Amino acid sequence: MQLYNFFNSSTSYRVRIALALKEVDYQHHGVNIRIGEQATENHIKLNPAKGVPVLITDEGNKITQSMAILDYLEQAYPTPCLLPDDLLTRTRVLEVSNLIACDMHPVNNLRILGYLKKQLDVSEEQKTAWYQHWIEEGFVALESLLTEYGHGSYCFGDQPTMADCCLIPQVANALRFGCDLTAFTKVLAIYEHCQQQPAFLKAAPNRQPDYIS
Amino acid sequence: MQLYNFFNSSTSYRVRIALALKEVDYQHHGVNIRIGEQATENHIKLNPAKGVPVLITDEGNKITQSMAILDYLEQAYPTPCLLPDDLLTRTRVLEVSNLIACDMHPVNNLRILGYLKKQLDVSEEQKTAWYQHWIEEGFVALESLLTEYGHGSYCFGDQPTMADCCLIPQVANALRFGCDLTAFTKVLAIYEHCQQQPAFLKAAPNRQPDYIS
Repeated sequence: MQLYNFFNSSTSYRVRIALALKEVDYQHHGVNIRIGEQATENHIKLNPAKGVPVLITDEGNKITQSMAILDYLEQAYPTPCLLPDDLLTRTRVLEVSNLIACDMHPVNNLRILGYLKKQLDVSEEQKTAWYQHWIEEGFVALESLLTEYGHGSYCFGDQPTMADCCLIPQVANALRFGCDLTAFTKVLAIYEHCQQQPAFLKAAPNRQPDYIS
Repeated sequence: MQLYNFFNSSTSYRVRIALALKEVDYQHHGVNIRIGEQATENHIKLNPAKGVPVLITDEGNKITQSMAILDYLEQAYPTPCLLPDDLLTRTRVLEVSNLIACDMHPVNNLRILGYLKKQLDVSEEQKTAWYQHWIEEGFVALESLLTEYGHGSYCFGDQPTMADCCLIPQVANALRFGCDLTAFTKVLAIYEHCQQQPAFLKAAPNRQPDYIS
């Protein structure tokens, strides 16, 4: 199995956490999206949407889209289970995962911030305000969902789920951008807990071969 | 079952297609996101992320996030199946669904276009260029994936899947915004086919009780 990814991409980080939790070995290929390597001819052959991560399975199938990769891993490597069997808990896990994957991450990723700067010529202050606006909106919703439905040391209980795979990279990103998350105590408690766990540490940006300090 | 949704919201439209395909009855509640009804106190109690759709199950559980709702419907009402059993086909369906749900829809929805206009004061031309840029990027990738892996009259074979639930509203939106999609022949053929099918017609914006012409 091979993973084309970037150390600091939160969609890559999501998939790395799942791989680490499931103890699936893979070969790491760094794709430096800061210098546009995701838009080279070779990478477009892997992913026409010019993104990371891309997983190449042992059978040679290439899979794009981190949420599709997470589902593939769940089906192909069901232990440990990251999507609970209980339907309502499963739904809550997917609700939190998709809040991050659909509402939060896409509007603040590198291609969007790049467009704001290059094509719309926004100032650094406006770019920061954009980032923080969507972070604030998203974290308010996350904190509310996790407070209403979550319990235990992870998002949903005392075992990690897909929700934790999505949450930790999103929190790490927000902290890296200097966002004040102190109001989101439930989110931060889960983040702190996960930061102590070997699989989450293994998947962290600063442990990747393509890490740039 | 109750669905809080807006006739022209493509995430609502996705869920309505799945409900129609599965022949699940529900009560329609219109939430007019053009006048901010998604941000009222009552709606925030349903969805702290201030979005549509929200599904209230027969047991009274509220579910937000259209992709989580689609998965819930798939689990609770498995016939007809919208996620194929074959793992690789399932993964392709989710790949296309998430390309739309994560890469395309979120960056062009009403809240983003509103922020561009109100907070960043972009011109109408810049807003249109933004919309068309992400539509073009996304449809190039969609056409490529569907050409490489798709077959049959729907995205994947001769039965509808979750990918069609996501694709049709996205195409409808792009056409409504005046985007030229003629280069995307595979996508358009699937769109034309679906537009003839009763479940897709039933779910269409102009058939909803809250439709505004």
